[in-house]
Amino acid sequence: MNEVSINKRVIGVDVSLETTTYAIVDVRGNIMAQDSFPTEDYPDINAFVAKLSDDVMSMIESNGGYDTIRSVGVSVPSANFQTGCIVNAPNMPWKGIIPLSAMLRDRLGLATAVGNNANIVALAEHAFGCAHGMKDFIVITLGSGLGSSIFSNGHIHVGADGFAGEIGHTCIHRDGRLCGCGNRGCLEAYTASKGVLKTACEVMEESDEPSLMRGVEHLTPKDISGFCDQGDRLAQEVMRRTGHILGLGLANYASIFNPEAIIFTGGITKAGKWLLEPAKKAFEEHVFHNIQGQIKFLMSALKDSDSDVLGASVLAWGVKEYSLFI
Amino acid sequence: MNEVSINKRVIGVDVSLETTTYAIVDVRGNIMAQDSFPTEDYPDINAFVAKLSDDVMSMIESNGGYDTIRSVGVSVPSANFQTGCIVNAPNMPWKGIIPLSAMLRDRLGLATAVGNNANIVALAEHAFGCAHGMKDFIVITLGSGLGSSIFSNGHIHVGADGFAGEIGHTCIHRDGRLCGCGNRGCLEAYTASKGVLKTACEVMEESDEPSLMRGVEHLTPKDISGFCDQGDRLAQEVMRRTGHILGLGLANYASIFNPEAIIFTGGITKAGKWLLEPAKKAFEEHVFHNIQGQIKFLMSALKDSDSDVLGASVLAWGVKEYSLFI
Repeated sequence: MNEVSINKRVIGVDVSLETTTYAIVDVRGNIMAQDSFPTEDYPDINAFVAKLSDDVMSMIESNGGYDTIRSVGVSVPSANFQTGCIVNAPNMPWKGIIPLSAMLRDRLGLATAVGNNANIVALAEHAFGCAHGMKDFIVITLGSGLGSSIFSNGHIHVGADGFAGEIGHTCIHRDGRLCGCGNRGCLEAYTASKGVLKTACEVMEESDEPSLMRGVEHLTPKDISGFCDQGDRLAQEVMRRTGHILGLGLANYASIFNPEAIIFTGGITKAGKWLLEPAKKAFEEHVFHNIQGQIKFLMSALKDSDSDVLGASVLAWGVKEYSLFI
Repeated sequence: MNEVSINKRVIGVDVSLETTTYAIVDVRGNIMAQDSFPTEDYPDINAFVAKLSDDVMSMIESNGGYDTIRSVGVSVPSANFQTGCIVNAPNMPWKGIIPLSAMLRDRLGLATAVGNNANIVALAEHAFGCAHGMKDFIVITLGSGLGSSIFSNGHIHVGADGFAGEIGHTCIHRDGRLCGCGNRGCLEAYTASKGVLKTACEVMEESDEPSLMRGVEHLTPKDISGFCDQGDRLAQEVMRRTGHILGLGLANYASIFNPEAIIFTGGITKAGKWLLEPAKKAFEEHVFHNIQGQIKFLMSALKDSDSDVLGASVLAWGVKEYSLFI
């Protein structure tokens, strides 16, 4: 990297369902300035791009000016890195195919890259987190959905059409639970938020034991994790079942990919040992024998609030500085 | 590649359970000389390496001499490319960890690389077969076992310990059939030779319909394919069930990996449409919706007898010519 680049900075943007966060980040991952606004206030994509561009421009002007900024990286659900588009994001307000990279580049006059949020988290782990120095690893993001990202030979594996990593929609139980994607028995239908709550309902129905999970329909996975810590046996059973099926799915994944480690992030993984101990047990029972005991389960050490903008900044450094003229 | 390399040739060796084949191959994949001997005649690894080295040396001497040969590539089951060892090959006569690459290098005085047979077939498909020009694809080898190999970003994905690709030992049916690996419900237990014959037994037990599959315990999957062509409805049902479960397993694989194509090779895939049409149907029903209809199912166009030595020759070209001195 030449001297100019070291003095330069990039913009990292994280677009999630509720909040859009944008930051100026230097080459070492220091966040120099950061701000955010509610995504859902901009159901029209043109209004959203205008708001984001104006805010980013104001931030740039009060933090060293336009010449200090090299490029822009954006983390967004269902993004295709190769085309720079958001493609049929099921939960976002903007439907169809949105050329977000081109729209931002045109307004900001800066080279811009867009990446799937699951891949972006893997970039952050590789550059600044516990996957630093690893060539082959998997990152599992467990929250409202189950996302995953694969590093192969030191690079993200995006796949032929840019859609690799949909472990959430692999079938773990034939004719099992209906998933939001339309298929049955998907791993996500058991291990992401709605799936955990469904398991909680099942556990409550099966047992007469007293439990803190009264009124389970109003709970969140975070509540259930809290009850686990308080010694609630039924809450622990919910996480045990969730972990067991997660471990099965990850064993299949690892038998195919042979990663060095699986790194966990996202709200549900805050359940910690209640989830990951049964997951690791089921994993070791089912993974191919040649790699049994070889694969590390690691909790992400990055702050949730930082990892997306940091990963987006890594993506930004990867864009050619003058690619907007090509 | 410099002038010397173009005039040079490599040795490609395929070690399989029954036969060891070795050939002199040029840079365009022309097989200049080829011979073989029965693997099982050499249950002692030292005797095997001595026999193979002597035979290869004789072939070299009568085909241009030692100076025309650059390096050696070997295809063998359960090989670890990174260490050059055979590791606990379940079906081979040599147990434990065998440093085959070093043993051959020491006797031949030529740089030698060893690769897993499933990966070797993928190298052949990429260099000389229907995956030419593809960056992301999967090769499925369906015979006595179910092997697979992954190309990611134009390179083989070997994994952190060199064991990637064990799709045969992913769980497709919880508490399902016992697999040779010790686990239950592995895809291989339904789709490789023994699994197909077991399905044939189940189909015969369930039906009173007359069938050519009498004395099913003495049949091979090839016989059953033949009966399919002759219109035997029960034989067709065997392949339909096998294809269905293969399609399910491949849908999971593709949802994670998003390949451009899946390429089929190995004896059982000779069943052609009887196997692959139900496989494709189940595949499209279960693969993640964003890649539905995008992924090609291709039959290998390489001759079975050639693809392993050709792939081994590609591996040989990848070794540094002087790596035996390092």
